[in-house]
Amino acid sequence: MDWTVKQRFDIEPFLKQLVSEARALPVSGKVADYIPALARVNPEQVGLALATVDGKLYCAGNATVGFSIQSLSKIFGLVMAMNRAGDSLWQRVHMEPSGLPFNSIVQLDYEHGIPRNPFINAGAILIADVLVSHYSASRQALISFIRQLAGCEQIFADDDVFQSERQHGSRNAAMAYLMKSFGNIEADVEKVLAHYFYQCSVNMSCKQLASSLTFLANRGVQPLTEKVVCSRRDAHRVNAILSTSGMYDQSGEFAFTVGLPAKSGVGGGIVAIVPGYGVICAWSPRLNNFGNSCLGMHMITGIAEQLGLSVY
Amino acid sequence: MDWTVKQRFDIEPFLKQLVSEARALPVSGKVADYIPALARVNPEQVGLALATVDGKLYCAGNATVGFSIQSLSKIFGLVMAMNRAGDSLWQRVHMEPSGLPFNSIVQLDYEHGIPRNPFINAGAILIADVLVSHYSASRQALISFIRQLAGCEQIFADDDVFQSERQHGSRNAAMAYLMKSFGNIEADVEKVLAHYFYQCSVNMSCKQLASSLTFLANRGVQPLTEKVVCSRRDAHRVNAILSTSGMYDQSGEFAFTVGLPAKSGVGGGIVAIVPGYGVICAWSPRLNNFGNSCLGMHMITGIAEQLGLSVY
Amino acid sequence: MDWTVKQRFDIEPFLKQLVSEARALPVSGKVADYIPALARVNPEQVGLALATVDGKLYCAGNATVGFSIQSLSKIFGLVMAMNRAGDSLWQRVHMEPSGLPFNSIVQLDYEHGIPRNPFINAGAILIADVLVSHYSASRQALISFIRQLAGCEQIFADDDVFQSERQHGSRNAAMAYLMKSFGNIEADVEKVLAHYFYQCSVNMSCKQLASSLTFLANRGVQPLTEKVVCSRRDAHRVNAILSTSGMYDQSGEFAFTVGLPAKSGVGGGIVAIVPGYGVICAWSPRLNNFGNSCLGMHMITGIAEQLGLSVY
Amino acid sequence: MDWTVKQRFDIEPFLKQLVSEARALPVSGKVADYIPALARVNPEQVGLALATVDGKLYCAGNATVGFSIQSLSKIFGLVMAMNRAGDSLWQRVHMEPSGLPFNSIVQLDYEHGIPRNPFINAGAILIADVLVSHYSASRQALISFIRQLAGCEQIFADDDVFQSERQHGSRNAAMAYLMKSFGNIEADVEKVLAHYFYQCSVNMSCKQLASSLTFLANRGVQPLTEKVVCSRRDAHRVNAILSTSGMYDQSGEFAFTVGLPAKSGVGGGIVAIVPGYGVICAWSPRLNNFGNSCLGMHMITGIAEQLGLSVY
Repeated sequence: MDWTVKQRFDIEPFLKQLVSEARALPVSGKVADYIPALARVNPEQVGLALATVDGKLYCAGNATVGFSIQSLSKIFGLVMAMNRAGDSLWQRVHMEPSGLPFNSIVQLDYEHGIPRNPFINAGAILIADVLVSHYSASRQALISFIRQLAGCEQIFADDDVFQSERQHGSRNAAMAYLMKSFGNIEADVEKVLAHYFYQCSVNMSCKQLASSLTFLANRGVQPLTEKVVCSRRDAHRVNAILSTSGMYDQSGEFAFTVGLPAKSGVGGGIVAIVPGYGVICAWSPRLNNFGNSCLGMHMITGIAEQLGLSVY
Repeated sequence: MDWTVKQRFDIEPFLKQLVSEARALPVSGKVADYIPALARVNPEQVGLALATVDGKLYCAGNATVGFSIQSLSKIFGLVMAMNRAGDSLWQRVHMEPSGLPFNSIVQLDYEHGIPRNPFINAGAILIADVLVSHYSASRQALISFIRQLAGCEQIFADDDVFQSERQHGSRNAAMAYLMKSFGNIEADVEKVLAHYFYQCSVNMSCKQLASSLTFLANRGVQPLTEKVVCSRRDAHRVNAILSTSGMYDQSGEFAFTVGLPAKSGVGGGIVAIVPGYGVICAWSPRLNNFGNSCLGMHMITGIAEQLGLSVY
Repeated sequence: MDWTVKQRFDIEPFLKQLVSEARALPVSGKVADYIPALARVNPEQVGLALATVDGKLYCAGNATVGFSIQSLSKIFGLVMAMNRAGDSLWQRVHMEPSGLPFNSIVQLDYEHGIPRNPFINAGAILIADVLVSHYSASRQALISFIRQLAGCEQIFADDDVFQSERQHGSRNAAMAYLMKSFGNIEADVEKVLAHYFYQCSVNMSCKQLASSLTFLANRGVQPLTEKVVCSRRDAHRVNAILSTSGMYDQSGEFAFTVGLPAKSGVGGGIVAIVPGYGVICAWSPRLNNFGNSCLGMHMITGIAEQLGLSVY
Repeated sequence: MDWTVKQRFDIEPFLKQLVSEARALPVSGKVADYIPALARVNPEQVGLALATVDGKLYCAGNATVGFSIQSLSKIFGLVMAMNRAGDSLWQRVHMEPSGLPFNSIVQLDYEHGIPRNPFINAGAILIADVLVSHYSASRQALISFIRQLAGCEQIFADDDVFQSERQHGSRNAAMAYLMKSFGNIEADVEKVLAHYFYQCSVNMSCKQLASSLTFLANRGVQPLTEKVVCSRRDAHRVNAILSTSGMYDQSGEFAFTVGLPAKSGVGGGIVAIVPGYGVICAWSPRLNNFGNSCLGMHMITGIAEQLGLSVY
């Protein structure tokens, strides 16, 4: 990595320029509309934030506007479950890339109810089962965990989104029941799904997301509080799974063109980890065919290329 | 990365110790026996080599004994094809992890004859088609490329292995004809397979492999000769695909536990790239269920953990 | 067909001999034990009944002992749904053989939630949805329909089996939710499943089953009552689907060796339709690997061969 | 079956009327064009023939025009292989419906190189392997067998079609090599494919096809010559497999609407067996999406409905 280049840079103007350039691009992609609550978002918004391991925070565009974090929540859930369940977790969920679209029920059946990794829906539902089984109030535990990481008590789950997800959650219910039929869901399926949909409906801004996940770029330690969120080994592991499986069926291409551990959500957010440097969060609601934010991809690719951030 | 740790180390004794420890482990795994020529190898051999970007080379155990490089040859073929075909290559082969065993014909059919990535067999056969179509004598071009990289004119393809591969190559023939049926193989299938089997039968030592691939850890430049083997961007790209897809169906686990771009072959060799530092090659013939060398995995995991090499 | 042969026969002694021979065979197969209520059955029982289109009824062995009809109930459900929904039914469920085990969720996903035929579980769950949607009290309607066909008011659904099925029904729930996610389930999933499990838990004897289904061998008309149960065309259609899809993944082999439309259930019952002649019901609890009764297959094969009943 | 209806009928005028009605229908479907030699056929032709077990032959339209029999040849190959190989044949090819399009390589891989039935391409290639292995000159043996059945020495294989098939046969080659990789092809793959493509390129008329296959409606005995072509049991078996698997992925629907054992070919021919009565052959080149002749389906459905021919 080009540390000198990175330090020479005046970061915030660079981020602002990236947001401006992104806004000037021809409209492309489509806001997620599988639930009404997501379809209502203003599609023109573009946010960008960077939190560094030395505790600095840079913002541009709509970086402080909250949005539905959706699958980005899978990172928080996974870290909590790893802390609680230890290595036995990996007997119930694997860490291999899936090679099939993110909600594939086919692979889940062939592999006897063991999800390929914790970032596909089936894997995140399994993680929800772990949390529901280990915490008496798993939703409260999750939102507290997130609030503490972000240093902000105002973070909440959007009830409209939550109810909407539940009503349109038949495919996720199918996967949960399929895992249950293989004995790989312990708690009541309805409870597990409720946790999962709650988690997806959490609302956060780019700024909150980037700062709350900085520990992943810093060997498990949150820079400002110096709190150990997870072990160094587990930080590496989460980043490894993000690298092979975080960007849905575009993960390989993202590694190829950007070269950073990253996760996206259908709310339009993308988080990218730069080990040893910091965490980028980009947001814009319109999605490409893989479910990844068009402008988010564009901005993160721009940062990674110009700062030479690829881990490879 | 812990540069200080790495530099404090006296590398060669450390490698020797790893080889000794590996040799002392209980026997595990099985030599590849799908062709007689591979089954004849002495299974007790253990080699380890490290070539660094500053031109140093460290060896331990049977690091100078030649073995069948098999799928490690896919790296050489890919770099040659990228240099020749440019970005249009990626319309004929993708860069996504496969999620299915390395020789899956199922995914190839569902995805209309476009292989998931250049490191599964179908992808490497497609790369062979590119080489056969771009070079009048593709096998000669390949062996020359390898000899130049390794700085050694004695490297050869083992004719016994080559003939044996051809005789047992029905599954690879099936994949080649399937791609042909989708119009994704241009040359004569028999010629393409001959190149592919030739490439697999090249014989090299750990020492030769580590030094010939150092350019991948050095932004495309071979350290000793300062020759530009490929662009910096292409070196990143090759490493990215190795990270998500180089270790067969154990790629995710390898990223999780080791965190390095790597490739293995059923001859028992494993090559791991440490960007900015160097290339490790480990060899021992007995394979685990995924087709990866048992002791090779053990030694590379040991180096990565002790030197803190994970890119994540 | 050899009508002369069939008429020359003294049927009942022949059936009794078949039961005796079956009882003398070495024990083979295994009682269904996925729910405790089924596992408790006495496995030594063997029953056989034949109801002819001219209103005669022949019995042998335990022909009057009730057992769990399980998937045999799919015939009753299908006929009711065809009568209610008309040809539009076939847009929601197809009539092609499945080529995959009876509870495959994979094919259901690839084919966008449209089950291959009404005799695989997904198809029968869809039929349950039709009944739940068309009847205010679908379970009562079903049991009345069966009682009327069998001419017996004592037929009931076994509550132990019903509760047990519900508790172990996660895989069926997964398929129902998957169809719901494709918009192919209209009613509440829990209600649909409750109907489906109720239907499976109906208890009938060989005698009752053979006589209740005689209309399928008689162009839709129940011989004794002369009541039109379904149209002649629909009787042909039900028999056609039974022929290609009634015996789980052994349907082709059954057509090959026996050549009759037939349906089996994991309670150990098998019903075979002989168009223009009558209906055979065989029962014995031990199942082969395909889920078909071992002795049931043996006895029905014996009848078909000796009487030359193959429709082909 | 309504024997009185059938006998009351004056057959030939009825067939002629069906041809006229078919010709008056709006154009639908598309001539097979995967090879130029097939695309050249005059698409307006419509032929219909019926050969009865009492030795009569009725013709209408272009019933004496030769066309490429394509997959209809699979019946001749199967009967020859059953006669030669006996019941051991069924360990190398199964008799289950496939549930997937006729040339699926996926199922072949999952089921370890054992084709689902002899009427999908993989199964017919396996049958070709049996014939190549059992006959010193398998192509000559096949054409002699056909000529003898049809009572016509002029039947030939079209060399243009044969060469064209070979040039466009990559997918069939893929399946052959895949079976070879599982050890389920004994002879040289190129020889097996040559036999298979030769067989597909045989040229026959409706009249020749109907009369050559009458033995299947007559318990294995050819009516005119009284020659035993196959055992009664094997005639039943061939008809059984035709019933579940003869009409590609429309087999279930054909059983449902027509109810006869039948086979179609992409040359536009369809053969339907009426056990105990005779064999119908319809021909018209335009195909529906399943690869079955549009007008052929229409005419055979008409005959079956009006004469009440369904075996169910």
